[in-house]
Amino acid sequence: MSFSRPDLAVIGGGQLARMMQQAAIGLGVRIRLLAESEDVSAAQVIPDHVVGDYTNLDDLRAIVGDAAVVTFDHEHVPPEHLRALEADGRVCRPSPDALVYAQDKALMRDRLADLGIPVPAHRVVENADDLDAFAETVGGYPVVVKTARGGYDGKGVWVVEDADAAMEAFASGVALLAEELVFFSRELSALVARRPGGEIVEWPIVESRQKDGICKEVVAPAPDLSEAVATKARSVAARVAEGLDVVGVMAVELFETPDGHVLVNELAMRPHNSGHWTIDGSLTSQFENHLRAVLDLPLGPIAPRDAWAVMVNVLGGDIDDLEGQRAAVLKAVPEARIHLYGKAVKSGRKVGHVTVTGDDLPEAIGRARRAADLFEEGTVHD
Amino acid sequence: MSFSRPDLAVIGGGQLARMMQQAAIGLGVRIRLLAESEDVSAAQVIPDHVVGDYTNLDDLRAIVGDAAVVTFDHEHVPPEHLRALEADGRVCRPSPDALVYAQDKALMRDRLADLGIPVPAHRVVENADDLDAFAETVGGYPVVVKTARGGYDGKGVWVVEDADAAMEAFASGVALLAEELVFFSRELSALVARRPGGEIVEWPIVESRQKDGICKEVVAPAPDLSEAVATKARSVAARVAEGLDVVGVMAVELFETPDGHVLVNELAMRPHNSGHWTIDGSLTSQFENHLRAVLDLPLGPIAPRDAWAVMVNVLGGDIDDLEGQRAAVLKAVPEARIHLYGKAVKSGRKVGHVTVTGDDLPEAIGRARRAADLFEEGTVHD
Repeated sequence: MSFSRPDLAVIGGGQLARMMQQAAIGLGVRIRLLAESEDVSAAQVIPDHVVGDYTNLDDLRAIVGDAAVVTFDHEHVPPEHLRALEADGRVCRPSPDALVYAQDKALMRDRLADLGIPVPAHRVVENADDLDAFAETVGGYPVVVKTARGGYDGKGVWVVEDADAAMEAFASGVALLAEELVFFSRELSALVARRPGGEIVEWPIVESRQKDGICKEVVAPAPDLSEAVATKARSVAARVAEGLDVVGVMAVELFETPDGHVLVNELAMRPHNSGHWTIDGSLTSQFENHLRAVLDLPLGPIAPRDAWAVMVNVLGGDIDDLEGQRAAVLKAVPEARIHLYGKAVKSGRKVGHVTVTGDDLPEAIGRARRAADLFEEGTVHD
Repeated sequence: MSFSRPDLAVIGGGQLARMMQQAAIGLGVRIRLLAESEDVSAAQVIPDHVVGDYTNLDDLRAIVGDAAVVTFDHEHVPPEHLRALEADGRVCRPSPDALVYAQDKALMRDRLADLGIPVPAHRVVENADDLDAFAETVGGYPVVVKTARGGYDGKGVWVVEDADAAMEAFASGVALLAEELVFFSRELSALVARRPGGEIVEWPIVESRQKDGICKEVVAPAPDLSEAVATKARSVAARVAEGLDVVGVMAVELFETPDGHVLVNELAMRPHNSGHWTIDGSLTSQFENHLRAVLDLPLGPIAPRDAWAVMVNVLGGDIDDLEGQRAAVLKAVPEARIHLYGKAVKSGRKVGHVTVTGDDLPEAIGRARRAADLFEEGTVHD
């Protein structure tokens, strides 16, 4: 099979690349995909895919080929490889200079603090003495210990009551970051798309609800959010995007504190789970605006299509045959917008999501949860 | 490359199959495509495609393979081949028994008349005497002569002032149908999706505006449509769908007469150009509901997302590089929902469409036309 010259190379074949393809079809953008294996989520829907290893520069070079622009399904490509691609004449969006701040939490915390953006108190720690000393500066244990690099969705993050509890992490030899345990009222997320040159759009601030450290639900916009906090959250996201010169979609995960402040928790420089609601709930989805941003096209308006959008993740549960559950889900909730990722079901793995929009928030939440429950367990929780 | 068992075989690789794939990605439906050649519109976005000839039963059998259900991008597959596939245990939706009425206008007219559905006066004609005799029954010339089979978007349709003008058509040997020239105020289209067992949804009646015999614009809902005519149009579509036992999406193109009647002009048993607005303007698109119907899944609600949706086709014009025009179009009309089909530009060929939704109809029309003009000619008409 031969393919026309791609407009865009996408590194990584997960659900984010899969959902980029839905937007790419309309825009007429030809994507070439680097897939981790032949049947990963995005490779099922992108004909021009090649199996390769994103940590191998030769694979990256072979796959990127003559695509002018390179973007990402995840942040794990080594920055030195991206610099090599840039030296070859490719344009990486986001650039490796920006992406390092999504890869390394210690670098990110320091850089954001330099930019005057509120972040939790933090310090790189190498041993128990470092950790004890840090704990003292934040009023004692418990504190948070996390891996500076890697770690995803709660894995690689521990709340420790003393330095002993971190000994295994220290012994592993990875770089660790200690952080104050922030007392927060809820988690918010600020999603932006930014184009080369600085054009930016900001979606409404949403509330993200976790379960066992994994994003489970997103409500857009965040209910009962004060205009003051919303303004702070939007301002933080815009300053991060500009300060780090991010191109593409970026999500800033935030803690909202009881006294009305926001602190940056995590950064993602790609479409993000907290923005999946935009496919069905916003005039332009995060996936389309990511493509428009990285291809340097004018960004689309992000007006909500409805008063509320509720996105609930489908996590691997008792049901192995998600496609076989479609009929039951759509019978129970015909208006559910369902998004299955074509992934094998494993316990707790994100295998899909459902979105319900509407004027009545409790009803939308109930119906979206009902649809997700039916996908996960075949029955509905009460 | 090897593929999982497909859920659905789609025969024909045009833009309709391409837009089915956008819906299939969300639903997790694996499509296998019979493509006319390697780089047709839908083959660009459906990995599991095989090049074949839909008039060749061996090709059809090889490509349909173990897909349980077969559906279509067009109505041109010989019905005897579909009956052979049914004998093999495949399910064709729509069935060949229904599809013949979308393939043969003479059969369709007679069957609809039997069902009591208003159609123009018509008669199969074989020679000049037949035509003169028919003309006499409808008050004389001019009358319409059209090919009973084949003919698409105005090709194969002539308005003749006398029998001499039809001599070339008679000489060609194809079956011809004569029809009264209906004096109509405008063309409407009624779009429905129907599931096995009879569940049906009907989108709002739209107005379709032609240019040189090709659909150029669709306004949803049809402006200033009386409730009486809307009810008649919806009733006609439901009776046709039920009477012919159609499964999937069907569009009924109608003439609205100045005295408030509707007459059936054409039938399409597949997603249709007059329903493209539903991708951006309706809670469930015609493409998603087509998949849901043919896979026997509950149908999605079709509530409009906005007061008005205006779809304008992009026809091949002066601009060869449509993708190169994206930036200019999106700069001029950032909210335009653009849909490029990945097809080579040829004069007058449908190569894409744009949709603008909103509360203000004249503004939406103006902005959608502006976007389409920029794709066609690089400048804007006044």
